[in-house]
Amino acid sequence: MANTSLQQLVIGIDIGGTGTKFGIVDRDGNVLFSSEISTKKHATVESFIDELHGALGELIQKAGGTGRIKGIGVGAPNGNYYTGTIEYAPNLPWKGIIPLAKLLEDKFQLPTSLTNDANAAAIGEMTYGAAQGMKDFIMITLGTGVGSGIVANGQLIYGHDGFAGELGHTIIIPDGRLHPGTNKHGSLESYASATGVRYTALELLEKTTEDSLLRKVPPAEMDSKKVYEAAIQGDKLARDIYEFTGRILGIALANAVMFSSPEAIILFGGLTKAGDLILKPTREHMEANLIQIFQNKVKILISHLKESDAAILGASALAWDIKTQLA
Amino acid sequence: MANTSLQQLVIGIDIGGTGTKFGIVDRDGNVLFSSEISTKKHATVESFIDELHGALGELIQKAGGTGRIKGIGVGAPNGNYYTGTIEYAPNLPWKGIIPLAKLLEDKFQLPTSLTNDANAAAIGEMTYGAAQGMKDFIMITLGTGVGSGIVANGQLIYGHDGFAGELGHTIIIPDGRLHPGTNKHGSLESYASATGVRYTALELLEKTTEDSLLRKVPPAEMDSKKVYEAAIQGDKLARDIYEFTGRILGIALANAVMFSSPEAIILFGGLTKAGDLILKPTREHMEANLIQIFQNKVKILISHLKESDAAILGASALAWDIKTQLA
Repeated sequence: MANTSLQQLVIGIDIGGTGTKFGIVDRDGNVLFSSEISTKKHATVESFIDELHGALGELIQKAGGTGRIKGIGVGAPNGNYYTGTIEYAPNLPWKGIIPLAKLLEDKFQLPTSLTNDANAAAIGEMTYGAAQGMKDFIMITLGTGVGSGIVANGQLIYGHDGFAGELGHTIIIPDGRLHPGTNKHGSLESYASATGVRYTALELLEKTTEDSLLRKVPPAEMDSKKVYEAAIQGDKLARDIYEFTGRILGIALANAVMFSSPEAIILFGGLTKAGDLILKPTREHMEANLIQIFQNKVKILISHLKESDAAILGASALAWDIKTQLA
Repeated sequence: MANTSLQQLVIGIDIGGTGTKFGIVDRDGNVLFSSEISTKKHATVESFIDELHGALGELIQKAGGTGRIKGIGVGAPNGNYYTGTIEYAPNLPWKGIIPLAKLLEDKFQLPTSLTNDANAAAIGEMTYGAAQGMKDFIMITLGTGVGSGIVANGQLIYGHDGFAGELGHTIIIPDGRLHPGTNKHGSLESYASATGVRYTALELLEKTTEDSLLRKVPPAEMDSKKVYEAAIQGDKLARDIYEFTGRILGIALANAVMFSSPEAIILFGGLTKAGDLILKPTREHMEANLIQIFQNKVKILISHLKESDAAILGASALAWDIKTQLA
């Protein structure tokens, strides 16, 4: 720790629908100080920023003051890298287009960069995690929903409007399961997410008469954790749920590979805790759907960033390459 | 033409399974001189290069000699940009890995760059065509097969191994139609290609009893041209074939948009001659499968490069940015 007083530091802020985590991070990806405030209790973004300014200000003082901070990186749902705005995020209390990066720059007098959470996760993996040194990889977050960040030629793909990388919404089964949030049928997210696993469990229980530990779970309480617990006890139906989920995910990964031909796909999030239960069918179906020139080349890796730190790290990583200039 | 004697020029070579087209091109995309030799009559790549050297040498002389030529760009099936090799191309007479760029550099003493035909087409559109000034777009060639080239952040995506951009092989209908070349089921190419349209016609004729002009066509003679001719005469079944093809293509385009969020998708090739017959359902199904943030933003454009020149232009465009150094 002898040299940390000379090191530059960055701030990472991860805004979620319920809470906002933030922390101060060094070059090696150590979260030196961190804390959390509520997102949803703030009806206006101004009151949110006021509380954040107070709480984060304390951490900045502990870290040696603003002078040591290179900038702020923010991961937020529907965050647009080009404009620094959050646009129509369904899970946040603030509606419409929120110029969040500008509001933070004005409040903290620090350059601020913003993108969506999955893109931030990808930059986090490239800066501190499993993708260090990679120029072509895809990050996929498998949580309540499915997010993705795509890196090609060493750069994140933001697309023409800043919204690239929505693999969770690509259609894998045309006319398949309805996604209540998007009103589209058969998207990856409607299957390969915690929510998707829950639906698959309920569907399979209804469609078959097969005996299963999951028959004891009341439908309202069914979730991906219950499916996991049954599967590790060898429950056939629970394993079929993972096989089915892995098939959909495998097709989606094959399509992504044939698009950008990454060195690796890095998975992060709740679903990956099922380990080989989900990874084995995913890998099998990915390979089975790849044309020959892509087969047996692409690594599927699990993120090794600590889950409690990952969101802050991802957001913070944005700030190292910050190009924003304070007006 | 007064200044052309001072202009630098490039060579474009498009290698196909049957013939190889080549020409000398100026900055504005004028093909000044061009010619063609047979590919398939050459059992070895050495004899192919000998004939090419003779034929192309004449054009170089007409253009004012090697001194005016900046370099050579080559579009070839399974062409790898990173290595300059053609790898296991099923439709070429030369098997295995062919170090084509190296062979051409040695023969012509000109720096040579190589990629696959669809990537070359994308660079051609960016250099001379509909994508001039665009930093994020996707080129899709709809011919006998389906090729694609993806540009993001102003750069072509080659991927980790040089083989990115195989949208034709992405799976749109899991368990769908078998592709005899790849042995995969339900890929875009198995539907949205001239070959795919032929199969859709044969399938629909068999599945229904509906009256159609196409019932007069012997199965062995069915092709996308016959379908087009019937459709412009108002034949309902022929129009259903385009509706079906456009639906598959529309889903594939939606998935591509949610991946890289391009400003435009540029279509090229035989299938686009059907105009709105194919474009209208394609656009409709693309929009219907996009989540809201992507809707009504992405242009679908038809390439306006002359079809006879396009392959040479695409290949030649590679040579303007050539980084290869002669050993």
